[in-house]
Amino acid sequence: MITTLHNDRLLRALRRQPVDVTPVWLMRQAGRYLPEYRATRARAGNFMRLCQTPELACEVTLQPLARFPLDAAILFSDILTVPDAMGLGLSFSEGGGPQFARPVHSAADIKRLFVPDPEVELRYVMDAVRLIRQELRGQVPLIGFAGSPWTLATYMVEGGSSKDYVRIKSLLYDQPESLHRLLEITTQSIIAYLNAQLASGAQALMVFDTWGGILTPRAYQEFSLAYLSRIVAGLVRKTGDEQAPVILFTKGGGAWLEEIAATGCDAVGIDWTLNLGDARRRIGDRVAVQGNLDPAVLYASPDRIRQQVAHVLADFGPGPGHVFNLGHGIQPGTDPEHARVLVEAVHELSGPYHASTGR
Amino acid sequence: MITTLHNDRLLRALRRQPVDVTPVWLMRQAGRYLPEYRATRARAGNFMRLCQTPELACEVTLQPLARFPLDAAILFSDILTVPDAMGLGLSFSEGGGPQFARPVHSAADIKRLFVPDPEVELRYVMDAVRLIRQELRGQVPLIGFAGSPWTLATYMVEGGSSKDYVRIKSLLYDQPESLHRLLEITTQSIIAYLNAQLASGAQALMVFDTWGGILTPRAYQEFSLAYLSRIVAGLVRKTGDEQAPVILFTKGGGAWLEEIAATGCDAVGIDWTLNLGDARRRIGDRVAVQGNLDPAVLYASPDRIRQQVAHVLADFGPGPGHVFNLGHGIQPGTDPEHARVLVEAVHELSGPYHASTGR
Repeated sequence: MITTLHNDRLLRALRRQPVDVTPVWLMRQAGRYLPEYRATRARAGNFMRLCQTPELACEVTLQPLARFPLDAAILFSDILTVPDAMGLGLSFSEGGGPQFARPVHSAADIKRLFVPDPEVELRYVMDAVRLIRQELRGQVPLIGFAGSPWTLATYMVEGGSSKDYVRIKSLLYDQPESLHRLLEITTQSIIAYLNAQLASGAQALMVFDTWGGILTPRAYQEFSLAYLSRIVAGLVRKTGDEQAPVILFTKGGGAWLEEIAATGCDAVGIDWTLNLGDARRRIGDRVAVQGNLDPAVLYASPDRIRQQVAHVLADFGPGPGHVFNLGHGIQPGTDPEHARVLVEAVHELSGPYHASTGR
Repeated sequence: MITTLHNDRLLRALRRQPVDVTPVWLMRQAGRYLPEYRATRARAGNFMRLCQTPELACEVTLQPLARFPLDAAILFSDILTVPDAMGLGLSFSEGGGPQFARPVHSAADIKRLFVPDPEVELRYVMDAVRLIRQELRGQVPLIGFAGSPWTLATYMVEGGSSKDYVRIKSLLYDQPESLHRLLEITTQSIIAYLNAQLASGAQALMVFDTWGGILTPRAYQEFSLAYLSRIVAGLVRKTGDEQAPVILFTKGGGAWLEEIAATGCDAVGIDWTLNLGDARRRIGDRVAVQGNLDPAVLYASPDRIRQQVAHVLADFGPGPGHVFNLGHGIQPGTDPEHARVLVEAVHELSGPYHASTGR
């Protein structure tokens, strides 16, 4: 890939290098709050077909960039494509919830799992990455992603979304060795998958540990963090002179920032329940931070949105190492014009925090 | 009330006085996991009638004490009886979710709210408290409770349970003055309600801030913690020589332990996402802590349950100031015999941690 990158703010901020203004992107920026997304999804027929058709995945990936001056694109896909490729048979109900035809309920089920070849079972994702890189023409970098082993295991064992996590927690407390076997093969699958995304053109990576926050500190260390560390260590991130940065995000993981920062990742994603200044002080200068506006702020008026953006920027304070984002995915009921207010406010209001860094 | 209290471990632990073994009770200990509870509820016809009939509320309050050597009873009721008494019209669907006939959607709706007289609109609760105290005959202390202003406001504005909290968060970010008016009258109602519970015989109080954890640190301070402090200051807790202890519990509030401990409360409830030793160190010797076994541990085998109980006891360590509990309510699918294993394990395994305190 020899395209010049015209906007490298995201990569610079993730490497804690000086920038002119704080880069911003939004989790789920390509999604249901955009009417053009809903139109493409309707054309696709269902969500899985949208993920599995590279042209459509590319189209929706680029939609928010056509609207707002975002500093990054993120691959449109779903974290559950990996367990689907491992043989579990993923579908989405009309209401939107994921369901596995063959969930993991026994030791025999775990034994049947295999590490998918990213260029075979997940070829459609790699084709999408290659197509998006081509269509982006170096406008902004492309972020690839995967779910964390613990988070994928949660869905694989529960069979879909869950309220009480009875099955996965029963496995954790009653048969920890079985859960480790499941996490082991899932980790191998994720490492192969993320490395293939890098080889296909992803310029940064993010790992979503959506359900790490439901664990005790002891269980988080053993069943989520240990495998996140394995993933960071297993990535082949060198492309040319530079290394593709990786962001780890455990929702509800505020208590474990220091440990997450020590995995070797480049940045830690922060949800809105922490003060970003406190997070920065706790992490020190080791890694960058990404976050952390409450997505519900986007229901307020433009003036209030700007005020809350200003709070987050002030909480982080001057200097490099901040990627602005929401603390969780943008909600489907959000007015797209409010997303614009957010993105523009970040660029307008963050300049002074970078003035002294001389770029 | 001149009955002698035969088992005062709970009150002593909440006051950080020496005990022989760690006291234990379980959030939702009177609840759906018990077949005798399900039978009484069926007799009542529906959940509201169960709450509103003092004899039945008393019956289910005492059911878990007949089974297990628990160190406290907790009033059987619901946090939403207060907004119901404020005029919102509470009912529960068959699936179990609460619903208000007249939710709070406008400034006019807030203006219509009034502070209920606990001996009029909530007389059935006070009658239940008096009856339970009588029937307990000093066996163990009775804990009264209420929801926090923020948590009640969440239900009042959303109209019931919520997933995304769109309405309450819109109000918070867009019309904070309106939300403060709602929290003000709710706080006055809760103070009157809790004081009436004390006057009727409750020997300790707990305030459940179930949804404080969905807030940013700034919003938590302004919209939840400030009102929790007002409640603690507004309680008339002196009965005879001693003061009834009050426990504050913000689920997901691990980041704010120090602030919660500084409100003047006697104990802080801790969910399972914190290490209890870390919590104790952060709080210092100011207040006691209550918690914090993951309720999902009860799905494991008796041996594993005992092992996890031992972890929690070891995390807290030696000395007074610990009330053992789950980190959240006991789940409906729990085997009652596993609850017994927990309660007995706490008493059996905690002795050595109190040996040096000489009681």
